[in-house]
Amino acid sequence: MSLQSRPISFLTDYGLSDEFVGVVHGVIHRIDPLATVIDVTHGVERGNVRAGALALLRAVQYLPPGVCLAVVDPGVGTSRRAIAAETAWGHFVGPDNGLLAPAVAMVGGATRVVSLDNEEFRLPRSGVTFDGRDIFAPAAAVLASGEATLGDLGADVDPDSLTPLLLPLVEHGDGVVDGEVLWIDRFGNAQTNIAPDDLALVGARPGDTLSARIGGQRLELPWADTYGPEGSRVVHVDSYGLMAFAVSGGRADEILGISEGLSVALGAPDGQSSETS
Amino acid sequence: MSLQSRPISFLTDYGLSDEFVGVVHGVIHRIDPLATVIDVTHGVERGNVRAGALALLRAVQYLPPGVCLAVVDPGVGTSRRAIAAETAWGHFVGPDNGLLAPAVAMVGGATRVVSLDNEEFRLPRSGVTFDGRDIFAPAAAVLASGEATLGDLGADVDPDSLTPLLLPLVEHGDGVVDGEVLWIDRFGNAQTNIAPDDLALVGARPGDTLSARIGGQRLELPWADTYGPEGSRVVHVDSYGLMAFAVSGGRADEILGISEGLSVALGAPDGQSSETS
Amino acid sequence: MSLQSRPISFLTDYGLSDEFVGVVHGVIHRIDPLATVIDVTHGVERGNVRAGALALLRAVQYLPPGVCLAVVDPGVGTSRRAIAAETAWGHFVGPDNGLLAPAVAMVGGATRVVSLDNEEFRLPRSGVTFDGRDIFAPAAAVLASGEATLGDLGADVDPDSLTPLLLPLVEHGDGVVDGEVLWIDRFGNAQTNIAPDDLALVGARPGDTLSARIGGQRLELPWADTYGPEGSRVVHVDSYGLMAFAVSGGRADEILGISEGLSVALGAPDGQSSETS
Repeated sequence: MSLQSRPISFLTDYGLSDEFVGVVHGVIHRIDPLATVIDVTHGVERGNVRAGALALLRAVQYLPPGVCLAVVDPGVGTSRRAIAAETAWGHFVGPDNGLLAPAVAMVGGATRVVSLDNEEFRLPRSGVTFDGRDIFAPAAAVLASGEATLGDLGADVDPDSLTPLLLPLVEHGDGVVDGEVLWIDRFGNAQTNIAPDDLALVGARPGDTLSARIGGQRLELPWADTYGPEGSRVVHVDSYGLMAFAVSGGRADEILGISEGLSVALGAPDGQSSETS
Repeated sequence: MSLQSRPISFLTDYGLSDEFVGVVHGVIHRIDPLATVIDVTHGVERGNVRAGALALLRAVQYLPPGVCLAVVDPGVGTSRRAIAAETAWGHFVGPDNGLLAPAVAMVGGATRVVSLDNEEFRLPRSGVTFDGRDIFAPAAAVLASGEATLGDLGADVDPDSLTPLLLPLVEHGDGVVDGEVLWIDRFGNAQTNIAPDDLALVGARPGDTLSARIGGQRLELPWADTYGPEGSRVVHVDSYGLMAFAVSGGRADEILGISEGLSVALGAPDGQSSETS
Repeated sequence: MSLQSRPISFLTDYGLSDEFVGVVHGVIHRIDPLATVIDVTHGVERGNVRAGALALLRAVQYLPPGVCLAVVDPGVGTSRRAIAAETAWGHFVGPDNGLLAPAVAMVGGATRVVSLDNEEFRLPRSGVTFDGRDIFAPAAAVLASGEATLGDLGADVDPDSLTPLLLPLVEHGDGVVDGEVLWIDRFGNAQTNIAPDDLALVGARPGDTLSARIGGQRLELPWADTYGPEGSRVVHVDSYGLMAFAVSGGRADEILGISEGLSVALGAPDGQSSETS
C-alpha cells in the first residue's frame, strides 16, 4: 500500500439492487484502504458483453490512467480465462471474453497479459464462483496499490490471444453507407457505427438532407449540428464523434423504432451521388 | 492540485444505466486526482429542471461547502449560458436555466457569475456537446482543486441575470391556504409548498383535523406529529419543515391520488376560523 | 478528525431516485472531510428489514472494519430505539429493529450498545424525523473520525436487549431438508437457508440428482458444481456457501416460480436414504 494508489475504474452488469457492487468495493478497501474507485456504470444489461465492451470503449479515454476492473461475465464457471492486461493506459482486469478487447485496443493494445491463476491473490471461497469478488477485485486492488506486479498474479499468456470482440464494420455502397446501431442511451439517442468520414466518402455533408434506412423503414433526415426545435428528428455527429439518430426533447428509439443491433443506412441526398462531391 | 481539494457535489438527470456519470467522475479525477465527489442524485427525471432544482434546494444545506456541479439540461445545444456562480457556500457550476437559482438563493445569492467561455478549461470535442463532460466537469474540477479561479473560466456576467426558477407561491384565503405539491419522494410522501406558519395564519394548529383539498377531492386529515398506526392518513411537517401528505406504511401518492404539481389546499377545521385562535 | 478515518459502509432502502443517499453522504463529509463511504446497496425493498438484514449479513465479512451505517426503518417515528453497537469488527449504527442483529452476531456479537440520545450529536430539525440524516449519519461520522466515542453518544443499554431478527431454520426429515428461500438476486438465482452440510446429513452428495419441492411443485434437479449448458436447471452451493436454485443463462426465479420466503425442500435421490450414506 503506497500513500497514493492508482484509481480503479469499475464497470459491471451487477446492477445496484443487490449488494454485489458494495461487496467488491469492500474487498478492494480491505486490501487497499486508500483506494479510489470510480463506478463507470453497473447498469450494463445482464450478460451483454458487447454492450459492456462498448460502454468501456466510449469511457476509457475519459478515465484516469490506473486500473480498469470490468466484469460482464455470462461464462462464469466455464473455461474462459480470468486475465489482467498491461497497456500504456494502465491495467485491465476481467474475464477474457471480448469485454476488455476494444478498450485495450483503443489505448494502444496490451503489452503483456497474465492469467489470474495465483491463489495467493484470490479470496478463499466455497461453492460456485463470484469471480468479481474473489478473483478480479483482489487483483485490481493489489495492482492499484502496487502491492503486487502483473507477474505476481499468474503466468504470462500470449497478448495476441486476447479474445476479440467482433464489432460490425460499415460498408460503403453507391452513395450510401450501411451500418448498425451500437447503442441506445438513457435519453433514447441511437448511436451508429457510421462516422462522418464515411458519409463524406459518399458525398454527404453537414446540412444535407440524408436518405436514411432504419431497419425496413426509409425516411429523409437532416444532418444537423444542433438539436433544433422540440420534436425535430435529425441525424448528427454525437458527442463521441459517431453518427446518431436523435429527436429534440424526445426519444429517437421510440419515435423512430430503433433498437441496438438494428441494421441502418445513411446516404447522400437523392439525386446526388459521390461523383458530384 | 492542492493536498486537499474542496468536495464536489454532483447532481444530474443522467441516470445510472449508461456510463455518463462515471465518465464525468473520470474527467474530474484526471484533472484532480484528490477529488472527492458526492453523488447527490442522478435520478432526476429527464429534463425536469424544476425537479432537479428542488432536489438541489433541499440538499444544499446538508452538503459540505465546496463546488456544486448540477446538470439537468433540456436546452443543451441551444443558447442557454453555461455558468459558474460564486456564493458564500462555494461555487455552483451548470446550465443557466433555473436549475441552480433556488439553491444559490438559499445560500445567500451569487456574489459573482461567469460564463464558461474559456476554451482552455473545456475538453476538445467533435459533434454535439456533452456539456457535463466537456464544459461543466472540467470547470468544477479546477475550481475544486484551486487550479483556476472563477475569473479564469470566462467573462463576468451580471449576477442578477441568473435565470430564476418560478416556484409556486401559497395563497392565504379565508381559513384556507392554497398551495401545490412540490415533490413525491421514493416512499410516496407528498411535500407541498405550504409551511406550518402558513397554517398558523389561518388558525390551524398541530393536532387539528384539517380540511384538505387534493386536486378536486375534499377530505379531512389530522395534522399529526408521528406516523401513527399502519394505514393512517395524515398531514405533517416533513423533515424539511414543509407540510406533507403521508400514509403510515403506505404510499400517500397512490392512496390519495397525488402527483407533482397538483393544486392542493389545507385549512383550519370546519367551523373554526382564524379569529378563534 | 484524524488523518485517516475508518471507512463507513452504508446500506439503506432509500433508493437512488431521490437525494436521500447524497444528503447522508453530505452530512458525513461536513462532519468528517476525510470520510470514506462505501455504498453497500440502497436498493433494499422499502421497509423490508429482513431483506436489508440478509444483505448486510452476506456483505459484512467483505467490508473493511470500521463503521456500518444501515437504515431500513419502517418504524421511524415509533418507539424503536436508535442505537450504536460495538463489536470486534467495529461499530454498527442504525435502528434497533432486527436490521443489524444478524451481521452483529456474525462478527461475534456486541460488546457494548448505546442508545443514540445525546442531542449534541444530532442535527437540529423540524417536523418528522429523517433519522438517517439527523441521527444515524452524525453518529456514524463521529465514530468513524474518532471525534466521539461510543459512550459520548448516549446511555448504555443491555447488549442482550438488541432486537433479534427471526431467521427461518431448516428442518431435517426422512431423507429431506425443509427450508426457505432467503433471497432472489439480480440474476434470478434463489438462495435458500439450506447448507450443503444439511444435505450431507440426509445422504445427498454433490453430483446427485436431488428431489426438490419448490412451493407446491415437485421436480428433480442435479446438484451441480458448474453452471452447465445454457438453460440447465440446477441446485448448487452458491458463492455464499448456501444451496441455491439456478438456471444457466436464465432466471431461476421466473423459470421455476420462486419468490423470497417460499417454502422449499431438498432431498436425497429417490430410493436413497440417509442410511445408505
